[in-house]
Amino acid sequence: MHPLDSIFKPQSIAVVGASRRVGSIGRELMHNLIEYNFHGKVFPVNPKADYIHSIKAFPTVSAIPDPVDLAIIVVPREEVLGVIDDCGQKGVKGLVVITAGFKETGEEGGRVEEQLKERVKRYGMRMVGPNCMGVMNTHPEVRMDATFAPTLPLPGRIGFMSQSGALGVAILNIARQLDIGFSFFVSMGNKTDVSGNDLLLYWENDPETDLILMYLESFGNMQRFIQIARRIAKQKPIVAVKSGRTPAGARAASSHTGALVSAQGLDVATDALLEHCGVIRVDTVEELFDLAMGFSKNPVPRGNRLGILTNAGGPAIMATDTAISLGLAVGKLSERTTAELRRLLPPEASVSNPVDMTPKSDRSKYEACARVMLEDDGIDSLLVVFVPPMMISAMEIVMALEELRRQFPKPVLGVMMAPEAFFQELNQKHPGHMAIYLFPESAVRALWALERHRQWRERPLGEVRRFEVNRSVAEQLFRSVRSESRRQLTAHEGLRLLEAYGIPVARSVVASSLRELDARARGFPFPAALKVISPDIVHKTEVGGVALDLRTPEELTAAARRMIESLGQQRALEIRPPEAAAPAFLLQEYVRGGREVILGMTQDSNFGPLLMFGLGGIFVETLKDVTFRVPPLADIDAEEMIRQIGGYALLAGVRGEAPIDFAALAEALQRFSQLVEDFPEIAEIEVNPFLVFPDARQFRAVDARVRLAD
Amino acid sequence: MHPLDSIFKPQSIAVVGASRRVGSIGRELMHNLIEYNFHGKVFPVNPKADYIHSIKAFPTVSAIPDPVDLAIIVVPREEVLGVIDDCGQKGVKGLVVITAGFKETGEEGGRVEEQLKERVKRYGMRMVGPNCMGVMNTHPEVRMDATFAPTLPLPGRIGFMSQSGALGVAILNIARQLDIGFSFFVSMGNKTDVSGNDLLLYWENDPETDLILMYLESFGNMQRFIQIARRIAKQKPIVAVKSGRTPAGARAASSHTGALVSAQGLDVATDALLEHCGVIRVDTVEELFDLAMGFSKNPVPRGNRLGILTNAGGPAIMATDTAISLGLAVGKLSERTTAELRRLLPPEASVSNPVDMTPKSDRSKYEACARVMLEDDGIDSLLVVFVPPMMISAMEIVMALEELRRQFPKPVLGVMMAPEAFFQELNQKHPGHMAIYLFPESAVRALWALERHRQWRERPLGEVRRFEVNRSVAEQLFRSVRSESRRQLTAHEGLRLLEAYGIPVARSVVASSLRELDARARGFPFPAALKVISPDIVHKTEVGGVALDLRTPEELTAAARRMIESLGQQRALEIRPPEAAAPAFLLQEYVRGGREVILGMTQDSNFGPLLMFGLGGIFVETLKDVTFRVPPLADIDAEEMIRQIGGYALLAGVRGEAPIDFAALAEALQRFSQLVEDFPEIAEIEVNPFLVFPDARQFRAVDARVRLAD
Repeated sequence: MHPLDSIFKPQSIAVVGASRRVGSIGRELMHNLIEYNFHGKVFPVNPKADYIHSIKAFPTVSAIPDPVDLAIIVVPREEVLGVIDDCGQKGVKGLVVITAGFKETGEEGGRVEEQLKERVKRYGMRMVGPNCMGVMNTHPEVRMDATFAPTLPLPGRIGFMSQSGALGVAILNIARQLDIGFSFFVSMGNKTDVSGNDLLLYWENDPETDLILMYLESFGNMQRFIQIARRIAKQKPIVAVKSGRTPAGARAASSHTGALVSAQGLDVATDALLEHCGVIRVDTVEELFDLAMGFSKNPVPRGNRLGILTNAGGPAIMATDTAISLGLAVGKLSERTTAELRRLLPPEASVSNPVDMTPKSDRSKYEACARVMLEDDGIDSLLVVFVPPMMISAMEIVMALEELRRQFPKPVLGVMMAPEAFFQELNQKHPGHMAIYLFPESAVRALWALERHRQWRERPLGEVRRFEVNRSVAEQLFRSVRSESRRQLTAHEGLRLLEAYGIPVARSVVASSLRELDARARGFPFPAALKVISPDIVHKTEVGGVALDLRTPEELTAAARRMIESLGQQRALEIRPPEAAAPAFLLQEYVRGGREVILGMTQDSNFGPLLMFGLGGIFVETLKDVTFRVPPLADIDAEEMIRQIGGYALLAGVRGEAPIDFAALAEALQRFSQLVEDFPEIAEIEVNPFLVFPDARQFRAVDARVRLAD
Repeated sequence: MHPLDSIFKPQSIAVVGASRRVGSIGRELMHNLIEYNFHGKVFPVNPKADYIHSIKAFPTVSAIPDPVDLAIIVVPREEVLGVIDDCGQKGVKGLVVITAGFKETGEEGGRVEEQLKERVKRYGMRMVGPNCMGVMNTHPEVRMDATFAPTLPLPGRIGFMSQSGALGVAILNIARQLDIGFSFFVSMGNKTDVSGNDLLLYWENDPETDLILMYLESFGNMQRFIQIARRIAKQKPIVAVKSGRTPAGARAASSHTGALVSAQGLDVATDALLEHCGVIRVDTVEELFDLAMGFSKNPVPRGNRLGILTNAGGPAIMATDTAISLGLAVGKLSERTTAELRRLLPPEASVSNPVDMTPKSDRSKYEACARVMLEDDGIDSLLVVFVPPMMISAMEIVMALEELRRQFPKPVLGVMMAPEAFFQELNQKHPGHMAIYLFPESAVRALWALERHRQWRERPLGEVRRFEVNRSVAEQLFRSVRSESRRQLTAHEGLRLLEAYGIPVARSVVASSLRELDARARGFPFPAALKVISPDIVHKTEVGGVALDLRTPEELTAAARRMIESLGQQRALEIRPPEAAAPAFLLQEYVRGGREVILGMTQDSNFGPLLMFGLGGIFVETLKDVTFRVPPLADIDAEEMIRQIGGYALLAGVRGEAPIDFAALAEALQRFSQLVEDFPEIAEIEVNPFLVFPDARQFRAVDARVRLAD
């Protein structure tokens, strides 16, 4: 038995805080349990009542003579902990805490929630909530509506979890109207114990659940979520509304990676990460329904080639526009299909896809043409549009399509631009009907999601390579940095760290004085670059701390002197903080040409380590053209990270240039990912620029900023 | 009397092709005219019937004894021209031709349509259609439903024009359910005579029409549309669904401007141009309704600061996300408001914006809190979200808001996440109610549109400057090019053209031989650039025809020799077309540094001349980061064109650089626009690169491609 079965498949339920007062949660919840015909025993618990809803009531849970699997708690917050103890002593294993007033109300509530969490754990219980509106399991052998929602659910094959209780209620309202049913519904509340990840795992192997919908406002453990979701989404589509797009506020950040994540980038990162694990993100609840209808009533298509059959041009054009913009293809019909359509249709009809049958087309025309199109191997799914003209009934058309879709293993979706009365009649007379939409765009979005799911299913997960690296060099470096009470590595140290992980770096030496610099310069290949090196100076260029393309030792010495002078003046003017240590010099191989890219990682409070890739220089600064992933990074992930930046064409070569070595760049990204995984103590790292060329032997990391966690 | 009044405000209507057969267009149209209670006389015309719909029928229009203002024609196509003649002899001034089978069916239909057009013009008539589904005017003194739609319209203050008849029917269906009424409805059909522009002008001064909605598949005269729409949108919001986003097919194009317009750019250009004239473009019919409801039931706000009042967190977060992403602001409440809300609400409520009252809030709480928020000067519009909990009626909340919105001149929109039954009751019991949406995003989109309209109203139209230019130089140039049977100007000629219009160009001289080049080089300032010049060679770099940064006359001579050799080889290899003329040399001032921008113009078959601005080099090639406008270009338009490119920050200065001289760049764009306006015979022109600097005196156009129309 799964531990969550005590919550979702109980034999007996105690409703603690059950009430007779109409309108109270304790009453409505009792009412729903009874009304929905729970297959098991329900025990109202209320010390002030002898019976509730015609059922004998008990003063406490422990006073119930029978075993109790699940306790649903709706008492005031002050009484919750006592009730938990009572349940614990009784041996109750499942809890749903409806009661609010915990961490969502501030510090004091947060403290009580901590106690609640501790107690639940101590008794070995599992808990949904607190601050939730309950749970449902529509399975015919369970039939549990343990919510206080005004709408009873339709049974179906969708698991739905909502982080907003109120939105959950609204969704149940609307779903019923749309003939959309659920296997499970869970209002998660504060997610103090049972999390979204727990529910995903629970539904992964549940034979009653084919599709998972989520309304989320925050991620608990994002890395774990990604691991789980990547696997599950291969079998069952996961559709998420993730709200809370507005950044909570700018964070102080010293690197581009951090800045991009904390500003508008955070939401872009969420998009990227959800895509990275096969989760289909939608913006609105409305789209969630559009997709739910599409998924729950259709097979997965074999490809992206859409057929459109219509009795009116306008909506077909709009469907085509939407399809193309979402990356679907309008399939080419075979000659045989075209000839057959030509035979079936009047001369003014258009028999290429979209097929416009003209307004006079009735049920038999729709049926014949839809069949011919479904038989065409060039069409993977069929969208049927109907604008009601006089005298032709939308219902007749739907009935014809219902028969066809049972004969063909292809998605068939309808768009009926008909009055509301039609939809009401459809739901009443034909529950479980095919997916029917009012607007063409909604239907096409659903088809897009079906196709996205197919692509994810067929996409290999790729291989996470482990490279031979020199891990001990990295460990020594970090020890030495920490021994000096520093957290920021110098550029030289940063490059050594990368080198240890097999990422090619520009040859560099350090000198702490002019004299030492002269000595080091002997035998060093020119042209060279000279940079000031100090953990306190982050933006070297701005303080005159960089000189490039030095061609002779003499030019080098002159540059070093100018640098000392410039830094000295700025120190005097207090532009730099006075504690900046005496700077040393970094003498570096000067790398010409190539494309600048940037590899970054920041530890995000939501996501954990977040890898970033982008074009460097002005591209990252002004265009924010970057992609995000979380480690571990499989080969295919690294390739996607590179391919998905807007300026990809620059790496592939413009104006007849040769493309850069993409395989080598992908490997560098995977090595970078391995470094980040091996050392969770790295708080932030940015390689910028990393210069890449058609020949991998020329690749060079030129600068690296690395910051360790406190 | 306006010429279109004969169509839209007739005293008497002849229905030519009226019929008794239920389900026929001729019968349904008669039925609608009578059913909707047309204020005037209706004459059925049908040689085979004595009476139709209880009304005496006539065999021809000329047989009608009374005057006839409007003839609605539903006879088969073969009979249409004869009917027109009959109408012409009778003196009918207005026509609505429902009959299809014209240019939409191919060449033969197109020829008949040309005859129809010619005849309509000859008789001095105005015609809507052919291939349309009719027109409506709901004015109480007209009451004309001359369509065959199954739904009678609600009266309202919206003028609606549709290029798709079927979509028009669907829209009438749905609008009625949403309690949205129209002043006029026009199915435009093939737009053979009366165009969208005609209707815009007709509605501009119509006191019954406050809002204009359009469903368009193509633009007739885009330049004229922009002129008209810019003016009208200042008074009445114009909302358009423009479909047909998919490019009809790639056009051969030799310049970036042309290529960008013909590829995905065309749709981007449409977006830009509609925005440029204040038209609000939406993607779907659903959004069209969302906006129509918002506009028709609310005043224009004074600003973009939105207040959100809710009884549930989730939908408010979603509303906030949408608002921020659309550029609206979530207003900051005054201390007084916050204190008052604190007094009204329980402690667990959130009293900063969005104000979350908690689920227990009833009508009186909603009323009191909404009032306090509307009184706050920091809030320009109010969005009220309600998720129905137990026992609190959504209708009660709406009634409270109805009272408030009459007291405050601010938009107040409701989101009621309630069952369909609520919406039905609302529409039945309270026609003309406030704007109520099912989902928060829809309401926020409507608020966004209200704010867009406010901004457009307040935005100055700017001034179109006319500069002193040397027009005769341009005329001479074009004459000379045409006299050589050329259409393509050389780079040198292109630069002279720009110079004549006051656009700064790099100093250049032409030499047709090495000897002449040597002579010209004397006294020419170095460093210089050398380019091969030939009307047949468009991509000079690719054929080795460009040498940059030549520092001495010797380097110049060597470069010229290499160039001759390289071109000769390629000619031999047939890489260049054999007819390429013997090349000459362009010796040019070599300009260092600056930012590359591109000024372009192409004549588009949809739009006429289309001006383009963007960052040059890789930006235009790979990122397609450009803006479009049509001439004439006011100062403010030129400034917007520059500001709206994605890489604007590069011009404003990154890494502490000084910004380029924006005023000078805007002036160059306006001079470029004037050139394009002065010479419609220019088919294509592209200045690339135009180098811009912080100091306008350094601005230089370095290359220009100009092609004249055939």
